[in-house]
Amino acid sequence: MNGRREFDFIEAIRRQQRRDPRVPVGIGDDTAVLFGGSKDWLATVDMLVEGVHFDRTLMTPGQIGRKAMGVNLSDIAAMAGEPVAALVAIALPRGSEPSLGEELLEGMRQIGEEYGTTIIGGDTNRSTAGLVISVTLLGHPTGRGPVLRSGARVGDAVCVTGSLGYSLVRHHWDFTPRVREATTLHADYEIHSMMDLSDGLASDIFHLAHESGCGFRIRADLIPVVDALITDDRSPLDHALNDGEDFELLFTLPKTEAERLVQRQPLVVPVTIIGEVTAGNNVLLVNAEGKETVLRPGGYVHEW
Amino acid sequence: MNGRREFDFIEAIRRQQRRDPRVPVGIGDDTAVLFGGSKDWLATVDMLVEGVHFDRTLMTPGQIGRKAMGVNLSDIAAMAGEPVAALVAIALPRGSEPSLGEELLEGMRQIGEEYGTTIIGGDTNRSTAGLVISVTLLGHPTGRGPVLRSGARVGDAVCVTGSLGYSLVRHHWDFTPRVREATTLHADYEIHSMMDLSDGLASDIFHLAHESGCGFRIRADLIPVVDALITDDRSPLDHALNDGEDFELLFTLPKTEAERLVQRQPLVVPVTIIGEVTAGNNVLLVNAEGKETVLRPGGYVHEW
Repeated sequence: MNGRREFDFIEAIRRQQRRDPRVPVGIGDDTAVLFGGSKDWLATVDMLVEGVHFDRTLMTPGQIGRKAMGVNLSDIAAMAGEPVAALVAIALPRGSEPSLGEELLEGMRQIGEEYGTTIIGGDTNRSTAGLVISVTLLGHPTGRGPVLRSGARVGDAVCVTGSLGYSLVRHHWDFTPRVREATTLHADYEIHSMMDLSDGLASDIFHLAHESGCGFRIRADLIPVVDALITDDRSPLDHALNDGEDFELLFTLPKTEAERLVQRQPLVVPVTIIGEVTAGNNVLLVNAEGKETVLRPGGYVHEW
Repeated sequence: MNGRREFDFIEAIRRQQRRDPRVPVGIGDDTAVLFGGSKDWLATVDMLVEGVHFDRTLMTPGQIGRKAMGVNLSDIAAMAGEPVAALVAIALPRGSEPSLGEELLEGMRQIGEEYGTTIIGGDTNRSTAGLVISVTLLGHPTGRGPVLRSGARVGDAVCVTGSLGYSLVRHHWDFTPRVREATTLHADYEIHSMMDLSDGLASDIFHLAHESGCGFRIRADLIPVVDALITDDRSPLDHALNDGEDFELLFTLPKTEAERLVQRQPLVVPVTIIGEVTAGNNVLLVNAEGKETVLRPGGYVHEW
């Protein structure tokens, strides 16, 4: 939108991109052009705001760029999809170094390339305040179709990938979007519903409940936590339930399928059964002694 | 990204949207799903930043939303495309009225609907400073394909729709994205290259020159200006060359086609021939007496 500066930034994107046969027209025209083929498209957007999602005194521009693209890759993973193309809009603080935009871009480009994703469009602007980055990511479902939030069935087992609750320890930007893990799961198991964990298990699970019209019974003692990494006075379970930005997959599938899955452990991270899908719409957290707590949407789960 | 507030906003979008058969999964999952069909896709993003692109004391949230969607519709128009689906990311200032998000959305939804566009995804965030809105718009080229910036040929006539240089008078948000005009032109005339005017004719024309590898000879006295509306001490031509946000179409086509076009005048706004495409890469501005000025990329054209 603003002349000379945008022009240079766009040229920088252009130079860094490999030619992608799926993108007959990339950066440099009024819009990009993507080959249609016959596949459906997945589309998602996430915005990162300085002072809310990141602190520029604690993260390099490359790390911020990596996170901005990574959270979108995680959304495509949550549909068991294949990421294809990204559009990036950035507001750069007035007076920031010219290198800021390029380093952000390089962080986005690198992680995008790891997952076969091309940056096909961009818009740079001045910001009167902090840095703001919005990434829109387009992708394809696999031949088995997308895995929706709405497919959970009563009796399904509930599983998660990896370990939860240590995003604060690993600085919340150093995560692996579970793109490959999701497509492996979807190819080889009857996954009924799936989402990625961005706000914390205790909040996110209500999205599955809402979209699927079901309840959940989650076994607190089964939630995979990483005790050794937690250094504050909150329990690992508290972190696992309430901290956001784990970017692991939460999914449901028939119990027999889940048992086959946890026995085989086909992913680079462990898969754990943490509960089951129930009738009704309550989300219950149950401890090892059988004590039940009813969770509330968007609520913080206090220590118990 | 941030729990309860986003959840409500997403529900608001969901309630307002009509069902669109092209969008089997809209708001509410990790990504939206779009039917692929066999058509190619156009994709563009534009970000509006408070204090840079709009002033909240001078525009209502509905007008800001309308502008945020409108600038993207104008980009799809510039490819002679048909807009289909939008993804919206918003950073709302801390402490702003809850109605702010809804009014922005309503402004976007209304103009989107005028052009057959559905909002299929969104992300809302808090902002530590001003309001930031990023809209990504997806669409299809028509059966004749997209009109690129790179297709201008030496000898083409250069045309514009409407009148230039009064964006400041009409408050720069009250513009009509030339979606219908562009598809009419593309259907009935051999349009070689096209773009929308967002930064001002004197800057924007360099994008056509750069992408097409050509020069231009523009007749200053032929540029359609609106004398009567200008109230400051700058000339109408100065406004037409240097002010941004006209959102009219700049395009090239064979001279015989251009003559047929300006004689028939098939659009709701006038089409005017303002010059021709030349060999080389100079952009020349010529006055009625034949005096030539060489324009520079990104430069401001001083009064002459």
